[in-house]
Amino acid sequence: MTEQPGRSAPVYPTALGVSSVEAITLLGRDLSGELIGKVGFAELAFELIQLRQPTAEEARVFEAVLVSLADHGFTPTAISARLTYLSAPDSIQGALASGLLGGGSRFLGVSEDTAAFLSDTLAGLGSAPADDAGWDDVAATAVRERRATGMAVPGLGHHLHKQGDPRTPVLIQVARDAGCYGDHLRLFEAVGRAAPTVLGRDLPLNGAGACGAILADLGFPVGIIRGVVLLARCAGLLGQLAEEMRRPIAREIFEDVERHAVYRPLDD
Amino acid sequence: MTEQPGRSAPVYPTALGVSSVEAITLLGRDLSGELIGKVGFAELAFELIQLRQPTAEEARVFEAVLVSLADHGFTPTAISARLTYLSAPDSIQGALASGLLGGGSRFLGVSEDTAAFLSDTLAGLGSAPADDAGWDDVAATAVRERRATGMAVPGLGHHLHKQGDPRTPVLIQVARDAGCYGDHLRLFEAVGRAAPTVLGRDLPLNGAGACGAILADLGFPVGIIRGVVLLARCAGLLGQLAEEMRRPIAREIFEDVERHAVYRPLDD
Amino acid sequence: MTEQPGRSAPVYPTALGVSSVEAITLLGRDLSGELIGKVGFAELAFELIQLRQPTAEEARVFEAVLVSLADHGFTPTAISARLTYLSAPDSIQGALASGLLGGGSRFLGVSEDTAAFLSDTLAGLGSAPADDAGWDDVAATAVRERRATGMAVPGLGHHLHKQGDPRTPVLIQVARDAGCYGDHLRLFEAVGRAAPTVLGRDLPLNGAGACGAILADLGFPVGIIRGVVLLARCAGLLGQLAEEMRRPIAREIFEDVERHAVYRPLDD
Amino acid sequence: MTEQPGRSAPVYPTALGVSSVEAITLLGRDLSGELIGKVGFAELAFELIQLRQPTAEEARVFEAVLVSLADHGFTPTAISARLTYLSAPDSIQGALASGLLGGGSRFLGVSEDTAAFLSDTLAGLGSAPADDAGWDDVAATAVRERRATGMAVPGLGHHLHKQGDPRTPVLIQVARDAGCYGDHLRLFEAVGRAAPTVLGRDLPLNGAGACGAILADLGFPVGIIRGVVLLARCAGLLGQLAEEMRRPIAREIFEDVERHAVYRPLDD
Repeated sequence: MTEQPGRSAPVYPTALGVSSVEAITLLGRDLSGELIGKVGFAELAFELIQLRQPTAEEARVFEAVLVSLADHGFTPTAISARLTYLSAPDSIQGALASGLLGGGSRFLGVSEDTAAFLSDTLAGLGSAPADDAGWDDVAATAVRERRATGMAVPGLGHHLHKQGDPRTPVLIQVARDAGCYGDHLRLFEAVGRAAPTVLGRDLPLNGAGACGAILADLGFPVGIIRGVVLLARCAGLLGQLAEEMRRPIAREIFEDVERHAVYRPLDD
Repeated sequence: MTEQPGRSAPVYPTALGVSSVEAITLLGRDLSGELIGKVGFAELAFELIQLRQPTAEEARVFEAVLVSLADHGFTPTAISARLTYLSAPDSIQGALASGLLGGGSRFLGVSEDTAAFLSDTLAGLGSAPADDAGWDDVAATAVRERRATGMAVPGLGHHLHKQGDPRTPVLIQVARDAGCYGDHLRLFEAVGRAAPTVLGRDLPLNGAGACGAILADLGFPVGIIRGVVLLARCAGLLGQLAEEMRRPIAREIFEDVERHAVYRPLDD
Repeated sequence: MTEQPGRSAPVYPTALGVSSVEAITLLGRDLSGELIGKVGFAELAFELIQLRQPTAEEARVFEAVLVSLADHGFTPTAISARLTYLSAPDSIQGALASGLLGGGSRFLGVSEDTAAFLSDTLAGLGSAPADDAGWDDVAATAVRERRATGMAVPGLGHHLHKQGDPRTPVLIQVARDAGCYGDHLRLFEAVGRAAPTVLGRDLPLNGAGACGAILADLGFPVGIIRGVVLLARCAGLLGQLAEEMRRPIAREIFEDVERHAVYRPLDD
Repeated sequence: MTEQPGRSAPVYPTALGVSSVEAITLLGRDLSGELIGKVGFAELAFELIQLRQPTAEEARVFEAVLVSLADHGFTPTAISARLTYLSAPDSIQGALASGLLGGGSRFLGVSEDTAAFLSDTLAGLGSAPADDAGWDDVAATAVRERRATGMAVPGLGHHLHKQGDPRTPVLIQVARDAGCYGDHLRLFEAVGRAAPTVLGRDLPLNGAGACGAILADLGFPVGIIRGVVLLARCAGLLGQLAEEMRRPIAREIFEDVERHAVYRPLDD
């Protein structure tokens, strides 16, 4: 526990923010002179994560993804954030964190899971298929293998929008129009075409899955994609908290639950 | 605990997201048809919080504020997020939440505190001063009163940038150019001019304070401003976590602390 | 940013846990030889916070306080933990943290607020009153002053147990029996006697307030008391999460809220 | 979204806390009359999770486990909690939550992983082995299979205590003395004997693994065991935070990291 004489001081390298007395640099650029007022927030978030500037087209697609994930109404995460605000109104960071902590495997993990599934499938390909029929074969095989392990195919199906998730075609069109239609999204669409035959029933491609495919095409590593979803959701949770300040409902939710509590031992 | 026969079912009103089988609406508009690919993410965040669309100029100023707050390098929050990721790499939401929880009174609260100070001062004014000299008087009085209570003037001073925070003039210029220069920012500048005389020493207007003034001018309620800072910081923390995945340093930070631990009882 | 040649290595002193290759010490004692199997968990928690071993009587009182605070059924924090578990079942730490984040000013802060109120009042006393009548005077003055600032008297009143919180007399008796009845609790009881006259209405001393008074008498610093409440609540939240695993209700809570959502713009 | 006429009101069953105007019951017992001052905190935590009262012996073993897991000095979680407190001292719940969020797969998950490994192995047994040699065979097979999948054997090895974790024999003895030595712990010891031969090197049974085995023997479901570890750690984190209030080090940790930051782009 004593300092080794020859131990060199630690060095903590970073490509992000570094400050000196005179300057603040971010991503190797001068924050005040080169970034503030010159780049958009989503554009900066893209670069903070990927360490490369998006093209204008990529930035537009990224904004579309963030917009589509920002808020889905009274989700468990939104309710949790509101209840935490009710309980601890002095700490908005706690309410926000409480909501984001719901970003796990079940509700906000679909985009990441879809990206991982597509990415693993693409990694296993020798060369890209020549045409749609080729992609459909790849997709059918991947869906079949996934099904054989007893796991659901991520990005497929929606508990509410059973006839089709209205976000999906719009997101795909945005990616196409921007020239950002890549292999992940191509494979995702093929999964949508192949799945009914393999699975024997219609399941729509959901919007969260489309977001995962597009984020992977934009170059986001699979392991950070859930984080991108949380960035989007952060805006939605702020909206929920601002609304809770204006027109609170958390106390009524709480009291409604409390009122319907009944004692029931385990063996009942 | 039994349902009252006449109890009406609860109703939870919201102006944000509502879904039906066919449609997802957000802010009363169709998410797929009217928002995805048509509004920017920061623009949407603005509206989710304020329930009104920003003008193009307001959106530009808001983006500038978010950009200037996104990342400040190895802050306590960034280190905390990285350490939590080291410890629980399976839960990126936990690492992000851990970082955001540092958004309290000391490090990320300056914008909110400044907005509250300016806003309270403005609320106490009968009518707006006629000229800069009038604003300087208002500011001098406010600083003097604040000082009399033994409290620091929020938005004034920076532990590193003692000769001036490089972000401040740029942010002010962005607000001016966009025609979003309002009374909060006007008063904030007056505080900067009046403070040296009242306090007897030079303290620069810091960037976080300027952000608070500008956000208040943009119409954000004081109580949500810390949340806006956290939205910006969310992007920075994702950058920190993506970097931790690529080029980890958290283990070295932890081991460096552990190596320098020494047992020392209380009365030493 | 380069290491100063003469900079001494940092030293991080601690009176808590320190490990070497052969031994783990905690509080300066050998964890394996002197603590495991020899001290109770609550006893250890007491010492980790206060750096002194409680007497057997103090430990008994501390256990009673923790037991009385452990679980209060479907509170906002319990619901929030369950919803987060529903959303992210892979991360029990997130669900637990989500619940604890509700430990703020409104629901779990009463013990700390009461301790602070009592402690401030005691600090302002020249010498301790000679008898109950003297304590009643002190209490009446303190309640009157508090009321003059427009603030509620912490520890007084309960939204449900309007005729008296059943925990309060039991907690006071436990403290008395253990010889741990100190000035904070004495003043707290005096507040209970004096308040009806000063305030013009009956308000019972609540159990959370009694816990705050007792914890202060046991020597816990005011600033850590909310943390002690959270330790107690941690056990309750684990109970809630174990129950959620066994007999889930979070999905029904969520769906009930979602089902009753209605779009309503701001100006409705 | 309108209430269905025939929809029955929701009912939320619980075996934990339920309050009425006159009484607070917990686990079906009167909190004030039957629990406060009569059961210990750890004992109550056991029952809140398992819905059965531990015997006096089980309670003693459970306390020993909690004591052994409470604090391990400057772990990533302890540092994270301190940094969050530095940054947001007004919100102790946030600092505590920030620390607990590190309770993931890498640092605090060993007990759960060990319990799962032992439990799965036991579930696969037709009948219990007749003697130690039989248990060694079972253990050797399980270790071999685990190794074949490329995964580490949980509970085996320690980064610091390479010659043996001092907690392990003490914990085993406590369980033996209390008559709580069950099949999980028996198998865990067999793993310790069999592993050197199978793996070709000595790896000590670590204390966290022993805790997992013992908790499983005490009847805790595998899925809640990480939560039990977090309850123990909650006490340690409160100790860390109380120490941070008394003798702060977080600022120095932060400044030491910041001082050693160097800008280095990705391709360096």
